[in-house]
Amino acid sequence: MSHPHPELGPPPKLAEGGLRVTPLGGLGEIGRNMTVFEFGGRLLIVDCGVLFPEEEQPGIDLILPDFTSIRNRLNDIEGIVLTHGHEDHIGAVPYLLREKPDIPLIGSKLTLALIEAKLQEHRIRPYTLEVREGNRERVGPFDCEFIAVNHSIPDALAVAIRTPAGMVVHTGDFKMDQLPLDHRLTDLTTFARLGEEGIDLLLTDSTNAEVPGFTPHERDISSVLRQVFGGARKRIIVASFASHVHRIQQVLDAAHAYGRRVAFVGRSMVRNMGIARDLGYLKVPAGLIVDVKALDDLPDEEVVLVCTGSQGEPMAALSRMANRDHQIRIVQGDTVVLASSLIPGNENSVYRVINGLTRWGANVVHKGNAKVHVSGHASAGELLYFYNICKPKNLMPVHGEWRHLRANAELGALTGVPHDHIVIAEDGVAVDLIDGRARISGKVQAGYVYVDGLSVGDVTESSLKDRRILGEEGIISVYLVVDSTTGKITGGPHIQARGSGIEDSAFAGVMPKIDDAIGRAARDGVLEAYQLQQLIRRTVGKWVSDNYRRRPMILPVVVEV
Amino acid sequence: MSHPHPELGPPPKLAEGGLRVTPLGGLGEIGRNMTVFEFGGRLLIVDCGVLFPEEEQPGIDLILPDFTSIRNRLNDIEGIVLTHGHEDHIGAVPYLLREKPDIPLIGSKLTLALIEAKLQEHRIRPYTLEVREGNRERVGPFDCEFIAVNHSIPDALAVAIRTPAGMVVHTGDFKMDQLPLDHRLTDLTTFARLGEEGIDLLLTDSTNAEVPGFTPHERDISSVLRQVFGGARKRIIVASFASHVHRIQQVLDAAHAYGRRVAFVGRSMVRNMGIARDLGYLKVPAGLIVDVKALDDLPDEEVVLVCTGSQGEPMAALSRMANRDHQIRIVQGDTVVLASSLIPGNENSVYRVINGLTRWGANVVHKGNAKVHVSGHASAGELLYFYNICKPKNLMPVHGEWRHLRANAELGALTGVPHDHIVIAEDGVAVDLIDGRARISGKVQAGYVYVDGLSVGDVTESSLKDRRILGEEGIISVYLVVDSTTGKITGGPHIQARGSGIEDSAFAGVMPKIDDAIGRAARDGVLEAYQLQQLIRRTVGKWVSDNYRRRPMILPVVVEV
Repeated sequence: MSHPHPELGPPPKLAEGGLRVTPLGGLGEIGRNMTVFEFGGRLLIVDCGVLFPEEEQPGIDLILPDFTSIRNRLNDIEGIVLTHGHEDHIGAVPYLLREKPDIPLIGSKLTLALIEAKLQEHRIRPYTLEVREGNRERVGPFDCEFIAVNHSIPDALAVAIRTPAGMVVHTGDFKMDQLPLDHRLTDLTTFARLGEEGIDLLLTDSTNAEVPGFTPHERDISSVLRQVFGGARKRIIVASFASHVHRIQQVLDAAHAYGRRVAFVGRSMVRNMGIARDLGYLKVPAGLIVDVKALDDLPDEEVVLVCTGSQGEPMAALSRMANRDHQIRIVQGDTVVLASSLIPGNENSVYRVINGLTRWGANVVHKGNAKVHVSGHASAGELLYFYNICKPKNLMPVHGEWRHLRANAELGALTGVPHDHIVIAEDGVAVDLIDGRARISGKVQAGYVYVDGLSVGDVTESSLKDRRILGEEGIISVYLVVDSTTGKITGGPHIQARGSGIEDSAFAGVMPKIDDAIGRAARDGVLEAYQLQQLIRRTVGKWVSDNYRRRPMILPVVVEV
Repeated sequence: MSHPHPELGPPPKLAEGGLRVTPLGGLGEIGRNMTVFEFGGRLLIVDCGVLFPEEEQPGIDLILPDFTSIRNRLNDIEGIVLTHGHEDHIGAVPYLLREKPDIPLIGSKLTLALIEAKLQEHRIRPYTLEVREGNRERVGPFDCEFIAVNHSIPDALAVAIRTPAGMVVHTGDFKMDQLPLDHRLTDLTTFARLGEEGIDLLLTDSTNAEVPGFTPHERDISSVLRQVFGGARKRIIVASFASHVHRIQQVLDAAHAYGRRVAFVGRSMVRNMGIARDLGYLKVPAGLIVDVKALDDLPDEEVVLVCTGSQGEPMAALSRMANRDHQIRIVQGDTVVLASSLIPGNENSVYRVINGLTRWGANVVHKGNAKVHVSGHASAGELLYFYNICKPKNLMPVHGEWRHLRANAELGALTGVPHDHIVIAEDGVAVDLIDGRARISGKVQAGYVYVDGLSVGDVTESSLKDRRILGEEGIISVYLVVDSTTGKITGGPHIQARGSGIEDSAFAGVMPKIDDAIGRAARDGVLEAYQLQQLIRRTVGKWVSDNYRRRPMILPVVVEV
């Protein structure tokens, strides 16, 4: 298996007749999936998603792929293939279309409907090309064939991209549920045909490559939901992802079976379920759905609320219910179902919500105590089937952290892909397919681009480092006016502290030390403001460290008059 | 089941002949376990542990129980029973002994050795009473019988406390491994005898009450370790908890079987394993342990390193190896085993370490891909056995978040404890055992006490709120000198920002707005410094919000001359 060298330089100009694959996101992380394909000077992009920030990115709203390497080649882009409508595959499209709004978007009906709704909020009306499984479309030099795959959102597609350099297949996110709710299987017949034709390079979803065995059927949840609904005596509140049409379908079916009505709560849930219903992906029995305001007129045992917030998001309805900060007040006997995954990193928030709901007397059903969730991604057992059917000549795991990519690579090797035809790349690493061999050729810029409020890219790693120090240690600001000729302090020191855990009155202890330091500096002829600022930083820093063993940020301002 | 009312007042004076049980930590959280028993005006404490901070407590080192409710009764304390030597049961002892150093500590040999080592660092030499299973000791009015229990550290004890009010049993942390490595079983024979005598109130570990079935045997890990050791061709690095003597024993045995030598890395690992070896809890074949410096002279395939850092702690050896910031440089083919749990909330840190190690070519074995960990706590199946043997008259789940306490209460109810004899309490809630019935009587102060650097309790919720704002949004400091008679700005505004993601040059945009606002205020006769500070805060805050849609902390300083 080839790995990128940490000190890889920029890739050379692509050899004539070669295809270059450059992931700008999704390799080394779960999220912001984006891959750029280059042939004959033209570009095709597959997916353009966002990554949600973790605690190391405090205050950040979203993380985008870095568009730097394609920014001066926007006119070369033939189109963006969107494999499905999840945020980590479509969420960054508005930010790319801001730079060039007429790049065509290519995807299935539901995928396009979801991205169009999102672009409307950004006031962008995109050029679109709707495709479905079995379609074959020429996009510049890229001959694209679309293949049905099964995932946790309907209408997902894989894409086979043929160029004179060979055939590359990108799975997008997928699993191989053999009994899907909508009977739309991952189309192994087509993958087998492509395998016979010859898949020169296969890019495969790695998310669940570490999970042994097979992902259970989505429909297995149905019996659990019915058991919960059958036992519930008061209201039922179900939290899930706003895009999980099949999961919500099963909730609606259970509600219908037990004579309950359903109200959707939350903007994204209402919007997405409206789209899914209008397009026929969600089948709703007449009279089942009611407005949330109508719930007051219904007895508790006839009510189901469907909302977001299953990841413990603090502003979502579910968190606010747990904190008694929502019009819906949880009472003893209510049932809350978290019919969703628990994304790593969200454990504390989710358990906080579960504990809050439990404390108010709710019976909380979640994946920790009932089978109310199945994954949307193929587990190791499925991936083995997939590799044996596709027989890829070269393999490049995508969509995953290092541990996932490596586990996926090892599955490929087990099925017979030669070790030296397996490439573990990471974000920005260019992989060139030349003469049937995929090899790493270099690395382009692919850092995190932060969205914070209205700004994109203004918040840098250095701002985040400052935030981390501020957040852990607080700040002490010291203001001083110094006579620039005598070196005497004529105003201040004014000290203000926030988050330091040091009482204002305690700073009396450091004042003489500042006086001393400034006095000594004056005698030594050191009078430049920036030097005095350094001196104050050192003096106050040492005092805090000695007395409190802490390291707050120190912000000295010396004004010379 | 009775729950505490959120607006519970302080408990009344304890009725004559009654026993009061007040948990000061560990109920509503996993950690800082501490329970106060009161009878006839005297107090007995069981455990005194710390809680490790989460992301909501930035910069905090440790969280202690709140000693306020016992602070003016320190002379009433007869002793502290320590059930076992984990930090969440003994870690706060130094902070309580600082207030009164001669409170006797009562525990088993290993438990006392661990707390004595810790107290030595705090320069406290405690009064101790060593006990073992089967002992019965009178501690003031509390007649204490100690019972062997099995846990993830050797020599753990439960305690039965008899007073004229009845018999209370506190399990501490426990599980019921039927094939423990040291053959020291949880003593069900004694619990059965106590059950026959009549357990009036049972306090039981809830940590795994949500986990169905039975916790696997510790010795099941042995075969997995041997498989890993048998397949490893280069160095093996095992990370685990520094107190998990039996886990480390199995690592030593595997190393011995495969002809490898072992070096301990890290202060707490070296110290604790030294204690465990000296006291006979760790059996070490002659010549097996070597100093870490001696490793350079051994071939890679004869080396095992045992270190801490299995929770992704950034300063621990394992994290530093993952970042190539440690003398031990991970290379292709090294094997790393995380033989430990993954404590909820640590997922991001742990996966970051696993990804880092994988990226350097290590083969990482962890509980996600191999059975290298079993829990130290009884699962639901074990708790059912336990309740059926103990037949408690009243039940009070301890050691757990709300979801765990409630799940544990429901297990008790299933075995026949009447619902109205089950009390779900939370930290600070006093439960009185009077005439054989346990009932909630009130609530004492039981908030978080933060240790940050050298200070205990100085960092308050308000400081933490400031830290959270600073950490998410950054700070803008504005300094201004105003002539107090004319209202004219004579110095500044000086603006400095940190972590705001706003470029310094951009603040030119807000300067005229500050001028305007101050000018208007002067014309209106508003000249007080604190009013002008408010004005600056509003003016700058609005400008940031309008232009960046963010809310940094704004720290205005107006000096009047």
